[in-house]
Amino acid sequence: MTGAPLAIGVDIGGTKMAAALVDGAGRTHHWRARPAPLEGARQVEDALVDLVDPLLARLRAQLPPGGTVPVGLGAAGFVDVHAGEVCFSAHLPWRHEPLAARLSERLATVVTLDNDANAALWAEHRFGVVRGRPDVLGVNVGTGIGGAVLAGGALYRGATGMAGELGHVRVVPNGRRCRCGARGCLETYASGRALALEARSLIRRARREDDGAAAARLLELVDGEPARLTGREVGRAARTGDPLARTALERVAGWLGQGLADAVANFDPAVIVIGGGVAQAGELLLEPARAALAARLVGRGFRRVPEVLSGVFGERAGVIGAAALAAAAASRG
Amino acid sequence: MTGAPLAIGVDIGGTKMAAALVDGAGRTHHWRARPAPLEGARQVEDALVDLVDPLLARLRAQLPPGGTVPVGLGAAGFVDVHAGEVCFSAHLPWRHEPLAARLSERLATVVTLDNDANAALWAEHRFGVVRGRPDVLGVNVGTGIGGAVLAGGALYRGATGMAGELGHVRVVPNGRRCRCGARGCLETYASGRALALEARSLIRRARREDDGAAAARLLELVDGEPARLTGREVGRAARTGDPLARTALERVAGWLGQGLADAVANFDPAVIVIGGGVAQAGELLLEPARAALAARLVGRGFRRVPEVLSGVFGERAGVIGAAALAAAAASRG
Repeated sequence: MTGAPLAIGVDIGGTKMAAALVDGAGRTHHWRARPAPLEGARQVEDALVDLVDPLLARLRAQLPPGGTVPVGLGAAGFVDVHAGEVCFSAHLPWRHEPLAARLSERLATVVTLDNDANAALWAEHRFGVVRGRPDVLGVNVGTGIGGAVLAGGALYRGATGMAGELGHVRVVPNGRRCRCGARGCLETYASGRALALEARSLIRRARREDDGAAAARLLELVDGEPARLTGREVGRAARTGDPLARTALERVAGWLGQGLADAVANFDPAVIVIGGGVAQAGELLLEPARAALAARLVGRGFRRVPEVLSGVFGERAGVIGAAALAAAAASRG
Repeated sequence: MTGAPLAIGVDIGGTKMAAALVDGAGRTHHWRARPAPLEGARQVEDALVDLVDPLLARLRAQLPPGGTVPVGLGAAGFVDVHAGEVCFSAHLPWRHEPLAARLSERLATVVTLDNDANAALWAEHRFGVVRGRPDVLGVNVGTGIGGAVLAGGALYRGATGMAGELGHVRVVPNGRRCRCGARGCLETYASGRALALEARSLIRRARREDDGAAAARLLELVDGEPARLTGREVGRAARTGDPLARTALERVAGWLGQGLADAVANFDPAVIVIGGGVAQAGELLLEPARAALAARLVGRGFRRVPEVLSGVFGERAGVIGAAALAAAAASRG
C-alpha cells in the first residue's frame, strides 16, 4: 500500500456490494465484490461480514495488537446518519435496520453508515473530478437513481438525513410502478432498470415490425431471452455501437436530463457529477443528458447551466467515499 | 413605533408590490401596497420608488441629519444575491436587472435584494411560526409558486442564489404552458393562477351540464365573465362555502401536496411553511395538501412526515423578511 490506510469502505448497492481498503490518497486496495442478497436483512448482514472480515484480518496483521481501522458503509437506502440506521430501501430488505450497530458488533470495530450516493459524491469531492468544489449535485445512475448534494463544501443531509432522493421525485402522473411503492418516479425512467426496459420495448417493436436484425445483437447477449437483459448489457452494447441499445440509452438520457433540470431548479449546483453503472456509457449518456438539461432548465439563457461531468472513480466511488467519511468521523472522535 | 426601526421591507410579487417599515420585533408600520406594473423594467423601478420614498422620507425626519435606514427587496424572480441582480422572472419584465444598484442610487440608501420566497421564509424563521427552527421548507403559493429552504438555520441559496425554485419543476410531461417558457411546471397546477383555471374549467362543465346554479356564486363575483376570475376570488368563495370553489381548491391542494412530497424527497425538511395569497384559504388548502403529501412521500411509514403549517404573517411575510435580511446585511457592514 502506497498511502497510509484510511479506512475500509463498503458500497451496498441495489444489486451488488463491494469493499476495499482505501488509503489516504483515495486509492483502493484488495477490492472485493459480490452480488447483494435479494432477501432478508440478516442475509445482507452476513454477506457484508463475509466481504469485510478478510480485509479487516489482513489489516489487523499489520497493526499493533488490538489495533483496528474504521469501516464506512454506503448503502442504497434512506439513512439516518446519526442513528446509524437504514430507515427504508427501495431495493434492499431494510426497514429501520440498525446496520451500523449490528456490524460494529460483528466486525469488532467502529462502523459508520451513510447513503451510497452521499459516499460517492464525497469521494469525487475529496479526491476526484470535483475535488475541492463546494456546490455539487451528485447523481448515481445504477439499478436505481441516488442523489446527493454538496452545499458550501458540506453534504446537505436535511432534517433526518434523507435529502437528495431525486430518484423518487414523480416525473409522470400515474406512471411506471416503482420499487418504492409509488408510480412515476424518475428512477423508473432513467436508471439501469429503465435502460433494460427501454431496450426490451424496442426489441418487441423490432420483432413486431419483422426487423429481427435490429434486435439480434442484444438478444445474442441474453440467449434470446429479452427478460434477462440488464441495463449493464444494454450499456455495453451501446458502447460497441449497437443502434437499438443506443436508442434505448438516448431515451434514458433524455429523462435523466429532465431530472437534472428539475434538480437544478431545486438545488442550483455549479456542477453535476454522474456516477453509477449506467454512467460507464460515458458521453453516450452524458451528451444527450446535457442537451436535455440545457433545453429544460428554468431561466435558461439567464443563468449558467451547470457542467455535467462523469465521476473519475466510476463504480469505486461509493467504496472510496464511505471510507473517507468513516475516517473523518473517526478523527472527530 | 413600538420597536426600534429595523429596515424598510419591500415585497415584489407577480401581481402586486408592498412596502412597510419593519421594527426589531418583526412588526410592520405604515403599510403601502399597489399593483405591479405588468410591463417595463423601468415602470417597475418607478413604481418601487413611488412606494418606498414616502416611507424613507417619514423615517429620515426622525433620524439625525444624513441618517437613513436600509431597504430590503424580496422579488419574485431568480435573484443573484451577491450581484444584487434579478437574472430572470417568469412574472415580471426582468432580464439581468441590476435592481439593487438602481434603487440604491434612486433612493439614496443601501438596498439589498433577495428572492421573495427566501424573504418570506426568513420572516417566519426570525419572528413567526417556525421561529428558531433550523430545517424548514417555505412554499409561497401566490400568482406563481416560490420556494425557499432553510438548512441548519441558514438560507440555502445554491451556487448562484437561485435554489428552491420548486414551482418550476416539471410535474406533467407536455403539460400546461408556464410563463417561464416551459410546459408542465408545478406552478401551472398549484398556484393562484391554477386555482382560477380549475374554477373556470368547473364553470364550463357546469354550464355544459346545464347546472348553472353550481357556478352562479362564482360568476356573480366577476359579472358573469369567467375569464376575469382570479385565484383570490376563488379562494374567498371557497372560504364562504361555495362548493365549486372548494372543488377547485381541493384539486390545487392535491397538486400542491404532490409538489411537497417531491420537495421533501429532495430537501428533507422537518417542517413546511405555506405562505402567499392562496394560503389565506387556510385549512381548506392545507388539509388536503397534507393528505396528498402523506400519501405520496417516498419512504412513508418509515420516516417522519414533515408538519405543514400556515405562516403567521400571511402576505406580510415577504416585507418583514426582506427588511430583516436588509438589517442583517447592514449590521454585517
